[in-house]
Amino acid sequence: MKAEIITIGDELLIGQVIDTNSAWISVQLNLIGIEVVQIVTVSDKPEHLVDALDNAQKRAEIIIMTGGLGPTKDDRTKKTLSGYFQSELISHKDTLDHIANFFAKRGLELTALNETQALVPKICTVLPNDLGTAPGMWFDREGKIFISLPGVPFEMQKILNEHVLPQLKKVNQGFKIVHHTILTYGIPESFLAQQIEEWELSLPEHIHLAYLPSPGIIRLRLSAYGNNKSHLESEINFFVEKLQQIIPDAIFGFNNNTMAEVIGKLLISEGKTLAVAESCTGGNIAHEITMVPGSSNWFKGGIIAYSNEIKIDLLKVDPELINQFGAVSQQVVFEMAQNVRKLFNADYGIATSGIAGPGGGSPEKPVGTTWMAVSSKDKIETVMVRFANDRERNIKRATLASLNMLRLLLKEVK
Amino acid sequence: MKAEIITIGDELLIGQVIDTNSAWISVQLNLIGIEVVQIVTVSDKPEHLVDALDNAQKRAEIIIMTGGLGPTKDDRTKKTLSGYFQSELISHKDTLDHIANFFAKRGLELTALNETQALVPKICTVLPNDLGTAPGMWFDREGKIFISLPGVPFEMQKILNEHVLPQLKKVNQGFKIVHHTILTYGIPESFLAQQIEEWELSLPEHIHLAYLPSPGIIRLRLSAYGNNKSHLESEINFFVEKLQQIIPDAIFGFNNNTMAEVIGKLLISEGKTLAVAESCTGGNIAHEITMVPGSSNWFKGGIIAYSNEIKIDLLKVDPELINQFGAVSQQVVFEMAQNVRKLFNADYGIATSGIAGPGGGSPEKPVGTTWMAVSSKDKIETVMVRFANDRERNIKRATLASLNMLRLLLKEVK
Repeated sequence: MKAEIITIGDELLIGQVIDTNSAWISVQLNLIGIEVVQIVTVSDKPEHLVDALDNAQKRAEIIIMTGGLGPTKDDRTKKTLSGYFQSELISHKDTLDHIANFFAKRGLELTALNETQALVPKICTVLPNDLGTAPGMWFDREGKIFISLPGVPFEMQKILNEHVLPQLKKVNQGFKIVHHTILTYGIPESFLAQQIEEWELSLPEHIHLAYLPSPGIIRLRLSAYGNNKSHLESEINFFVEKLQQIIPDAIFGFNNNTMAEVIGKLLISEGKTLAVAESCTGGNIAHEITMVPGSSNWFKGGIIAYSNEIKIDLLKVDPELINQFGAVSQQVVFEMAQNVRKLFNADYGIATSGIAGPGGGSPEKPVGTTWMAVSSKDKIETVMVRFANDRERNIKRATLASLNMLRLLLKEVK
Repeated sequence: MKAEIITIGDELLIGQVIDTNSAWISVQLNLIGIEVVQIVTVSDKPEHLVDALDNAQKRAEIIIMTGGLGPTKDDRTKKTLSGYFQSELISHKDTLDHIANFFAKRGLELTALNETQALVPKICTVLPNDLGTAPGMWFDREGKIFISLPGVPFEMQKILNEHVLPQLKKVNQGFKIVHHTILTYGIPESFLAQQIEEWELSLPEHIHLAYLPSPGIIRLRLSAYGNNKSHLESEINFFVEKLQQIIPDAIFGFNNNTMAEVIGKLLISEGKTLAVAESCTGGNIAHEITMVPGSSNWFKGGIIAYSNEIKIDLLKVDPELINQFGAVSQQVVFEMAQNVRKLFNADYGIATSGIAGPGGGSPEKPVGTTWMAVSSKDKIETVMVRFANDRERNIKRATLASLNMLRLLLKEVK
């Protein structure tokens, strides 16, 4: 079975909001063997949605819409759908009760505007929205399924998980897709392609490879198509193992793993802990780490030393070194990594000091110049990289690069 | 003039990559008065792209494609376009020279795979890609403009800025759209709608209002349509000023302002500095702050105290308080905010301590329980909020909430 996703809202077309719902829905549909053939974003104008619905039916059996269900005047999806399915809007009792309860719980009074949230086309099946006030709606027409969901991500996700996917699973049985993504760090795309060319050519026809490059990380996605899920999975495992022999150091994880998560697992397996001293990355390394659930078991914390004063007073960097070599230097980042490790009584330390930009560059140290260090009781490594001119990218790349240094150090120890 | 955006790539349809290019392109087109009528995401299969191109021409005069131009086997856009425009692929000399130079600079040899990057349909105008190896392409046919750009965001952005937008600006003269977005924090959507209903009704027909809710923040976007840009802008200013009188405290900024940026401006205007002590937010407050260019002028740094040991040793929190009230308590967050301010010799301090989840909750302090404090020489405020169950959202909401506490404190001082 094939699906099409329609996201609704002027805010998407003027670029004010990035559509994250489609990607999330696509992942869920793929997991139950439903292929997404197209994603379309249309405006809040009724005629655009009608046009998109007409076209989607030509390509797909399942059409999932998100957005346009809010209480305010610019959201017109419900009225449009009611017309499209030649139905009428009625007040849905359970939904009205839920909304009243929703507001009462928060000590707020129910407004007339909120009551309109309980209106739905008579012909639809209501999909309850536990986390919000706009319910989802399911329509069946001429063998096609139309589903309308709110645009707020966590509300949409809960409705899809609880009321849509279990039903679709029943409808769609047989065809399977298995995806597996290998995460690599450090080898540029065209070189990676050369290194793994032979392996790529050995893939059978029903297993596809795609390269997904992003700054620093290239993801290799294998997709296997067939009827037997466990057979597809073991085929994929076979090819992943082959690949690990070709580029063992570059592969840092799989699927949705993050670099920080991988490091956390390595540290836990050794019973070791980590602390960070961040200058140019300004807290982003700690943020990446603390996004991992349970990171408090292996992460002790860190110091964001955004001024020389703090590098000297708290991190005990010798002021002479800063005078002689500058804050962005091997000598300073070396001390930062060593001292934060000792100060936090941790086994490993990471430190960064660089010029994220746009200001602060000089001929010898242009914007993007970044020193990074990792330290353990037995070893310290320092690296200098010149990133580019973009502040956000420099912060992200330095975060990733220094975490990868630690990963390689931990692999060595192991 | 109207535009349609087509993003190409299986990775988008299986949800592995979130399409951020469309939003960015839409913003740029809007700024020069070109309206985006639809965004479509299609697979790497040639027939899908051909189908999308056929349909897009019915709705728009300008069709912008991104993606599918990489050197690897899964990218087939160039061949498809060559066929679509009945042209043939030829090697483009300037591009080949650029690619050879691109690799030489990095000390890498030019591979046969990279040479294919210089192939383009003979009929197109090549749009140079300074930051990568896949050039953009511009096609004119029967009064319609087709533009193909690489999918890597920063490469695409540079080509669009330098080689596409200046051209499109010349083609499209006359019709103007002015967008202005008001950023609010703290009032739920339906209550906000009630408070500003009268104001909303007073808007003329050519000015539209849209509500863009996200956790904590609701953005109100005004869009004005007409021929006279400066007239539209002064109309919008008029209505924005009216709105500021109705909800003065809730409005924290405009358009792409971030909360951290707004705080930075307030601190700079007072010549004051800030330090942070983060437990549950784990570095994210510092990260939000240090994403602001020039933040080193007002941000001294911080301590990520992810264990009690660090709260006691570095932040000098009285261990008795932790024993008696727990690390997630008013007493502890109070001390953290005071002590980090003193330790960093800063004028203001922010502190957080909470249970981000998924683990660590208890009946008295369930997951989501978060204490926050802001401190100055003269005042300390503490607040407890119960966020939800999602770790990522809890970290983001606590970050925003504590930054907003500081904003209100700074406004008061002013």
